[in-house]
Amino acid sequence: MNYFSSNFKLGILGGGQLGKMMLYDTRKFDIYTCVLDPSPDAPSRLACDEFYVGDLLDYQTVVDFGKNVDVLTIEIENVNVDALETLEKQGVKVFPSSKTLRTIQNKSTQKLFYRDHNIPTADFSRFAYTSEIDEAVDNGGLNYPFVWKSARFGYDGTGVKVVRSISDLTDLPNVECITEKLIPFKNELAVIVARNEKGELKTYPVVEMEFHPEANQVEYVICPARIPDDIAKKAEAVALKTAAAFKHVGLLAVEMFQTENDEILVNEVAPRPHNSGHYSIEASYTSQFEQQIRCILGLPLGNTESKVAGVMVNLVGAEGYTGDVIYKNIDTILAMDGVTPHIYGKKQTRPFRKMGHVTIVNKDLEQARRIAQEVKESIEVISTINNNDTNSKCNN
Amino acid sequence: MNYFSSNFKLGILGGGQLGKMMLYDTRKFDIYTCVLDPSPDAPSRLACDEFYVGDLLDYQTVVDFGKNVDVLTIEIENVNVDALETLEKQGVKVFPSSKTLRTIQNKSTQKLFYRDHNIPTADFSRFAYTSEIDEAVDNGGLNYPFVWKSARFGYDGTGVKVVRSISDLTDLPNVECITEKLIPFKNELAVIVARNEKGELKTYPVVEMEFHPEANQVEYVICPARIPDDIAKKAEAVALKTAAAFKHVGLLAVEMFQTENDEILVNEVAPRPHNSGHYSIEASYTSQFEQQIRCILGLPLGNTESKVAGVMVNLVGAEGYTGDVIYKNIDTILAMDGVTPHIYGKKQTRPFRKMGHVTIVNKDLEQARRIAQEVKESIEVISTINNNDTNSKCNN
Repeated sequence: MNYFSSNFKLGILGGGQLGKMMLYDTRKFDIYTCVLDPSPDAPSRLACDEFYVGDLLDYQTVVDFGKNVDVLTIEIENVNVDALETLEKQGVKVFPSSKTLRTIQNKSTQKLFYRDHNIPTADFSRFAYTSEIDEAVDNGGLNYPFVWKSARFGYDGTGVKVVRSISDLTDLPNVECITEKLIPFKNELAVIVARNEKGELKTYPVVEMEFHPEANQVEYVICPARIPDDIAKKAEAVALKTAAAFKHVGLLAVEMFQTENDEILVNEVAPRPHNSGHYSIEASYTSQFEQQIRCILGLPLGNTESKVAGVMVNLVGAEGYTGDVIYKNIDTILAMDGVTPHIYGKKQTRPFRKMGHVTIVNKDLEQARRIAQEVKESIEVISTINNNDTNSKCNN
Repeated sequence: MNYFSSNFKLGILGGGQLGKMMLYDTRKFDIYTCVLDPSPDAPSRLACDEFYVGDLLDYQTVVDFGKNVDVLTIEIENVNVDALETLEKQGVKVFPSSKTLRTIQNKSTQKLFYRDHNIPTADFSRFAYTSEIDEAVDNGGLNYPFVWKSARFGYDGTGVKVVRSISDLTDLPNVECITEKLIPFKNELAVIVARNEKGELKTYPVVEMEFHPEANQVEYVICPARIPDDIAKKAEAVALKTAAAFKHVGLLAVEMFQTENDEILVNEVAPRPHNSGHYSIEASYTSQFEQQIRCILGLPLGNTESKVAGVMVNLVGAEGYTGDVIYKNIDTILAMDGVTPHIYGKKQTRPFRKMGHVTIVNKDLEQARRIAQEVKESIEVISTINNNDTNSKCNN
């Protein structure tokens, strides 16, 4: 099939920011795209050829959407997997596969998958309900401290908690969950693996998530990671093994811990373009979004090396501000060398809401890192109303 | 005004390929865009917020479109300039200005402008009608060979002819025109100047148009140009002088000849993103399209330097093929290092029709140039029907 002429249709489940960024490259290659998203205001409503509003978790909606496309992909994992399985049986190419998504959607089966495939990961226990954890502790099968994770749709910050004593358990939802050994780690790393159906395989360089020393939040994604070569090679090997285990087609972002003993443990994976690869738009020979298209369309993979070093900073809503968004000092950061803001187009900000990201590229990594800090100290995502300060004027 | 939140509208006259590429960056910055184009199938119909079909040369259509936007720009020079003047009086910011466009739209006034502003350009004569040229030759005021150019809407290949004898004049249209001294030149160069309203000014590196030795057609645009530093500095100075003379806001692509005596002569200018700057998407810190947006919105200008060397090859329809387009061997070029095709999405090819371009980037310019040649020798823009060979099977 020739993707570069008519009659081919690519379907994307989810029309959020990742989908929007993928559409830049489908437009570049003139690929006909159909997008399904629950929100009529989804960022991808522009730039795709056909836009449909519908529930990604509804079996019939996804089947009806998918049967009209040749290749179907996702930009969010939380979709109806039974529908994907039906579509696969009907001959639609679905990447990532329904099988991979089913494994990944549940943290408990995801962890089992790693164990079954001899992929290094933190020790864990599985529980049908949070309430069963008490007993395991009482029996001596589990020791404080540990990390509690909801098995389904538990994303960082919402479905994860460090449990240090019984009282930390009381507020948790009584759902299917896992507990994980709390691993002291030196670095959080990520590797994006790209693979097409022919089995052609490439990895992006290892990136490093630099955490804020106090807030324990990722502040910078840094490419390449500032780690020794042998650690980078080890992380790359683990990522490749993980992608091979899934027989994955498309991008697989593998998030890992480098422990204090320099072990590499897989934390979790995302079978799609990922926040840890946003730097690639400006820094890499082939952006992760173009690579995803190359993978799922069976095209040759592009060069994953970097032209220059890259640092990525997430733009999140400042504390104390809710309402119509203002990007304070955006002119200041636009005047800095090699700085590119990506504004996601959400009209309303609220504390910690992800509103965009900024990439900083430079021939010199340390210089990029310094400029990234200036960016972070300059720009503020605020609104006209300061919730903390409603009696006086806005403090800018 | 904050361009990064609601209520701001950018208008673009023309929805062709240049407009489409500019829209990638308006989307990145979440800028609200309105596009006017005569064709309902224009490439920009996707990715803009509001798309209107209408005649760019009709006064009322352009005024009606423009009065609803805050900043108005063009992606094609051939628009109604009286309408732009009206809009400027009504307070719409129009970049390039109506005055600049009026000067540029007519090659005769464009050449006068260079002479009046002491900008080096090839000697020329102006004629109200082609039929008046004979007399000038007879009077000894003009000698063969010379270049004939139609004053209005004369673009390369359609409104230009080298005249070596009286017989070459007979087929030419009897229109307003200029004749230019035929200049033997070593190189054709171009410099893109970026300027915002505050007068901040940057230039992209000098690029070189490498011609096919026989066909006399631009084959490669090469950045940076393989010329001595002093010539590059001279070309840059001439380009800056030209932009200053226009008091230009936005991008100005200045095409120049490097004569055999190493003089720099301005050939013509384009007040917008330009084919000679397409390489910048992959090679530069700031692509020409993002830079155009920065210029016309009064934002700080981005870094115009290159991350890596770049070579651009135009994709044109192969001779002998008309009909539904096929990009033969596109897989072959996608497997080459640092190669990015841009497919413009025209469904029908015909001989020499511009169907896309390919950028080749590499740390090493000579390597990029070699790969560019492989690209050119591999890919073919053909169709299912070979006009030259209708009795036998298609020769692939």
